[in-house]
Amino acid sequence: MHLAVIGLGRMGANIARRLMRGGHTVVGFDRNPPLIEAIAGEGAIAASSLEDVAAKLASPRIFWLMLPAGQATEDTIQTLTGFAEPGDIIIDGGNSFYKDDIRRAKELQQKSLHYVDVGTSGGVWGRERGYCMMIGGDKATVALLDPIFSTLSPGLGTIPRTPARLEQEGEDPRAEQGYIHAGPAGAGHFVKMVHNGIEYGLMQAYAEGFDILKGRASDRLPEDERFELNLTDIAEVWRRGSVISSWLLDLTAAALAKDQMLSPFSGRVSDSGEGQWTVDAAMEEAVPINVLSAALFARYRSRVEHTFADQVLSAMRFGFGGHVEMPQ
Amino acid sequence: MHLAVIGLGRMGANIARRLMRGGHTVVGFDRNPPLIEAIAGEGAIAASSLEDVAAKLASPRIFWLMLPAGQATEDTIQTLTGFAEPGDIIIDGGNSFYKDDIRRAKELQQKSLHYVDVGTSGGVWGRERGYCMMIGGDKATVALLDPIFSTLSPGLGTIPRTPARLEQEGEDPRAEQGYIHAGPAGAGHFVKMVHNGIEYGLMQAYAEGFDILKGRASDRLPEDERFELNLTDIAEVWRRGSVISSWLLDLTAAALAKDQMLSPFSGRVSDSGEGQWTVDAAMEEAVPINVLSAALFARYRSRVEHTFADQVLSAMRFGFGGHVEMPQ
Amino acid sequence: MHLAVIGLGRMGANIARRLMRGGHTVVGFDRNPPLIEAIAGEGAIAASSLEDVAAKLASPRIFWLMLPAGQATEDTIQTLTGFAEPGDIIIDGGNSFYKDDIRRAKELQQKSLHYVDVGTSGGVWGRERGYCMMIGGDKATVALLDPIFSTLSPGLGTIPRTPARLEQEGEDPRAEQGYIHAGPAGAGHFVKMVHNGIEYGLMQAYAEGFDILKGRASDRLPEDERFELNLTDIAEVWRRGSVISSWLLDLTAAALAKDQMLSPFSGRVSDSGEGQWTVDAAMEEAVPINVLSAALFARYRSRVEHTFADQVLSAMRFGFGGHVEMPQ
Amino acid sequence: MHLAVIGLGRMGANIARRLMRGGHTVVGFDRNPPLIEAIAGEGAIAASSLEDVAAKLASPRIFWLMLPAGQATEDTIQTLTGFAEPGDIIIDGGNSFYKDDIRRAKELQQKSLHYVDVGTSGGVWGRERGYCMMIGGDKATVALLDPIFSTLSPGLGTIPRTPARLEQEGEDPRAEQGYIHAGPAGAGHFVKMVHNGIEYGLMQAYAEGFDILKGRASDRLPEDERFELNLTDIAEVWRRGSVISSWLLDLTAAALAKDQMLSPFSGRVSDSGEGQWTVDAAMEEAVPINVLSAALFARYRSRVEHTFADQVLSAMRFGFGGHVEMPQ
Repeated sequence: MHLAVIGLGRMGANIARRLMRGGHTVVGFDRNPPLIEAIAGEGAIAASSLEDVAAKLASPRIFWLMLPAGQATEDTIQTLTGFAEPGDIIIDGGNSFYKDDIRRAKELQQKSLHYVDVGTSGGVWGRERGYCMMIGGDKATVALLDPIFSTLSPGLGTIPRTPARLEQEGEDPRAEQGYIHAGPAGAGHFVKMVHNGIEYGLMQAYAEGFDILKGRASDRLPEDERFELNLTDIAEVWRRGSVISSWLLDLTAAALAKDQMLSPFSGRVSDSGEGQWTVDAAMEEAVPINVLSAALFARYRSRVEHTFADQVLSAMRFGFGGHVEMPQ
Repeated sequence: MHLAVIGLGRMGANIARRLMRGGHTVVGFDRNPPLIEAIAGEGAIAASSLEDVAAKLASPRIFWLMLPAGQATEDTIQTLTGFAEPGDIIIDGGNSFYKDDIRRAKELQQKSLHYVDVGTSGGVWGRERGYCMMIGGDKATVALLDPIFSTLSPGLGTIPRTPARLEQEGEDPRAEQGYIHAGPAGAGHFVKMVHNGIEYGLMQAYAEGFDILKGRASDRLPEDERFELNLTDIAEVWRRGSVISSWLLDLTAAALAKDQMLSPFSGRVSDSGEGQWTVDAAMEEAVPINVLSAALFARYRSRVEHTFADQVLSAMRFGFGGHVEMPQ
Repeated sequence: MHLAVIGLGRMGANIARRLMRGGHTVVGFDRNPPLIEAIAGEGAIAASSLEDVAAKLASPRIFWLMLPAGQATEDTIQTLTGFAEPGDIIIDGGNSFYKDDIRRAKELQQKSLHYVDVGTSGGVWGRERGYCMMIGGDKATVALLDPIFSTLSPGLGTIPRTPARLEQEGEDPRAEQGYIHAGPAGAGHFVKMVHNGIEYGLMQAYAEGFDILKGRASDRLPEDERFELNLTDIAEVWRRGSVISSWLLDLTAAALAKDQMLSPFSGRVSDSGEGQWTVDAAMEEAVPINVLSAALFARYRSRVEHTFADQVLSAMRFGFGGHVEMPQ
Repeated sequence: MHLAVIGLGRMGANIARRLMRGGHTVVGFDRNPPLIEAIAGEGAIAASSLEDVAAKLASPRIFWLMLPAGQATEDTIQTLTGFAEPGDIIIDGGNSFYKDDIRRAKELQQKSLHYVDVGTSGGVWGRERGYCMMIGGDKATVALLDPIFSTLSPGLGTIPRTPARLEQEGEDPRAEQGYIHAGPAGAGHFVKMVHNGIEYGLMQAYAEGFDILKGRASDRLPEDERFELNLTDIAEVWRRGSVISSWLLDLTAAALAKDQMLSPFSGRVSDSGEGQWTVDAAMEEAVPINVLSAALFARYRSRVEHTFADQVLSAMRFGFGGHVEMPQ
């Protein structure tokens, strides 16, 4: 198919590459001209502006946006809406908030434009492994775009098939290829958002476990209950036949194998919004999520040395017990 | 009554003073001679050793220990057990672990000695306000010691009486005086331990609330959703007619009135063991306690700038997304 | 002063009564005519409609709304805005979301109307104890309304004064009377929201503590570590000289004194929105709040017998270990 | 090698089978004679008692215990210690508490016996996939037993090797085969315990995520923010190229593919002790673990309809606000 990829940062460029490798024709654009040149050097058609992008595509035009969520995405959609003709399709492949998708789809529908939101997982590895995609939009449009999704997806690969799927008929075969049509506009990013919420929880579970392992060497423990554990080997062994093997564990094992102390990393952890939105979504549904929220809060906490809350505790303890603070 | 107070630190000395003011005769001892002299100067009988303490009391001898939980208390009980005569009473007024009380009571019983554990709340304010006491031990011994507990307790004071207690008969009148016989040995410290577990939870709830109030001035927020709140006045107003008024809030209001930034306090918060024991007790009972455990963990977290868990998170994020850490 | 109270449910009626007792003239209105009659019987001026309310007040007219947050409040403000004349004042004394306040104040300002938000704590006890009030709005309007706030507030009462306030000059004296001008529109409800978030945390801390005390009688525990604790007496004794005394504990003691098993209460706990908004506000500020969120989630959890999450856990455990579920 | 497997339940029998398939000679014993007959039918040597087990092995005798942690394991070790001769080896392959291992190793050492603790992951799948093993004990004994561990382990298999391990020399090659010598006695079960603690956290993270996805269909949500999501396809798609792919997700996908409502599972989730011990270990080290503890508490909570804590909350809410509980 012919489509534009707008936003040629690491993710956008990799998506363009995987699409071209799969035989699609890509028109590339970015605010930053060198990125356009780079992708043009790999076979894409360079566009010099959003207008130029539109001019270089035939109807129905397909615009795949791979931009930072928020203002950049919003503005670009506004601009494209100006040029777009009925039937054109805007795909937001970034990490937009699902309520923005719902709103945009309604706005675009009034101009007979189609809006599709694609939550994309796979990080920097997706170019090789393929991208796991969670798609929201109307059925016909998503079906029309199937060759694109099929190219970007990882496919069956070497991952063993889920037994019950083999026995049953009528399952959507796309899930096994690594992409799903999750529902109407917004559903794709909603599922991706929960995916990221889970990711935060999984990461924090591993992180706390390794923290306990490392803390076991503390000389405040009784001598015979103290262990100097080899975290590198532990991460490695858990990859092999254990219940907690996972891709995140693979990454942890790789990092520990390079440096068991993880000394390149200070531990200030940012978050990308999806964790917060996941907590919001859960609260709207009155679903208790102590693990997912604790994982998010651990990230907030990692970014300050002391909270004001800590100071309030110290002040109270001084007030009722004359307790002075622990020395550094 | 005549009794010994062993351990004349701040808490022990204040207890001795309140007892003497109530007409009791106190024999005082401490490892640290100047503390003995000090309390002798206020009317106590000085003892020069634990043997001397025993010699200066008549049967049944009453030893009130006010020592750090753990080895100090354990050793002193061992030593006293050597001198003690059948019918003598050892009271542990410190913060011992309730399972230690259970064990000690059994050991002492074999020598016809009585063991009483007293969980004591009131901090540095107890000398004036009186001490809230939670007592474990056998019924007859606790009854025998009633004049001591009655003197130390705050009494009815100005605190309004609980309506349903006025209407009912058969309630234990001691609770309204500020002390209870909670059950057999260990029950006193068990109730005190849960008291402290709750205390951690309450403190953290206030602390988080004030953290949110303070954080509202952040210039990362949209300008019209940003407030410069006066935390001193907020703490004060909540003391007056609000649902969350409490003694801990009074202390917070006092600290904020002195310095709204709480700048004397860095926020490294220690914990005294009871929080951990409370979590243990809850796990033995399979009782879910997300708030009490989170309050304890917040204290642990306050004592390190970054956890190894934080570093593990950063390493994973770099692994799957090439994310670099946030700058300081 | 002359003012209208719109919404004569329990809270609204009590506020009207306290105002009249303080010498103010109250015009009363409610969608439900018998409530108007009732308050008229106690000395208020009955109004038959919002228009009639407006007609019965002199300029600048003061409308105190005491309505459920959300649509009821929103609609009434819309209607009043129709009649209102420059300088009129609309007070929202309910539990509105602070961002609604910010929006409304802007809208009303364009018509030269004043908007004041008042977060009110005190529950059903406020009529007697007075209401703790957190007020948002412009300085001049809040100053104009001072006689009203002064009447509704609890005043200094018998609550001991915070020491540092006595020594310092320049503190806002209103805080000690039980009301504060927290900041511009929205600030009142923001502070009240955090108040309720804290309230959830405090309540859950006590609740978990009592759960541990009750669980100690479990026959799954070793016999000598099992205690049959008298929760009624424990709650009572903690009211007296302990660090965790509070008004919420007073209420708990009162409930336990009536029925130690709390058998009238099944334990389905609702929440009023503020807990969720507090978590949202904290996330906007990146403030970690494990205790306040856990308190909210405990309420969600109390409302379902099993979550789908529980079922997912069971399904996994069956998958990897052949574990069957525990019998009921 | 020749060794005994004591305890022929599902795990023990599968271990015996995998060992025999690997060329080892197994003496089998269980309290339950039919289990002995069954394994004898598959090639093991039947033993009629622990004495008989000892008689059927040559020095140094190797006893692999695969019994429930606690009394069963403790008693069997006591009995074996009676017969054992210097140099004999007792392996505890169950889920013992690591502090029991430390104590036992000391006791056995006084009789010149060797104690090895093996934490084993792999569940019912281990017979085919091999077992991930974490081993504690003295170096020479663990080295002596290497042929056994090598047979039981999964080996390199098809799992991609960790890049940094390929480049570095001096790494312990056993980790890549799926077993490690973690440290002295107790270290094996310690690492396995943390493994299970992490497992709880991972499981709860997925569980909460799916709970949010399912809850999105709630009719209390605004209609256009409501999605009917296909959980089966979502679990499947996340297995393919996503950051959160894992073996636990594979199991979840398999369970959902069979029944999207997971209706065979009510959601009462038990726990096996390791979760609790992990929290204990973290507290001993003062490591904050909000995720791992929340995962454990979610299991406790799943086992009761309402906690007493819930009732306490309801009682307070009634006390301060006259709030009645939500209807069922």
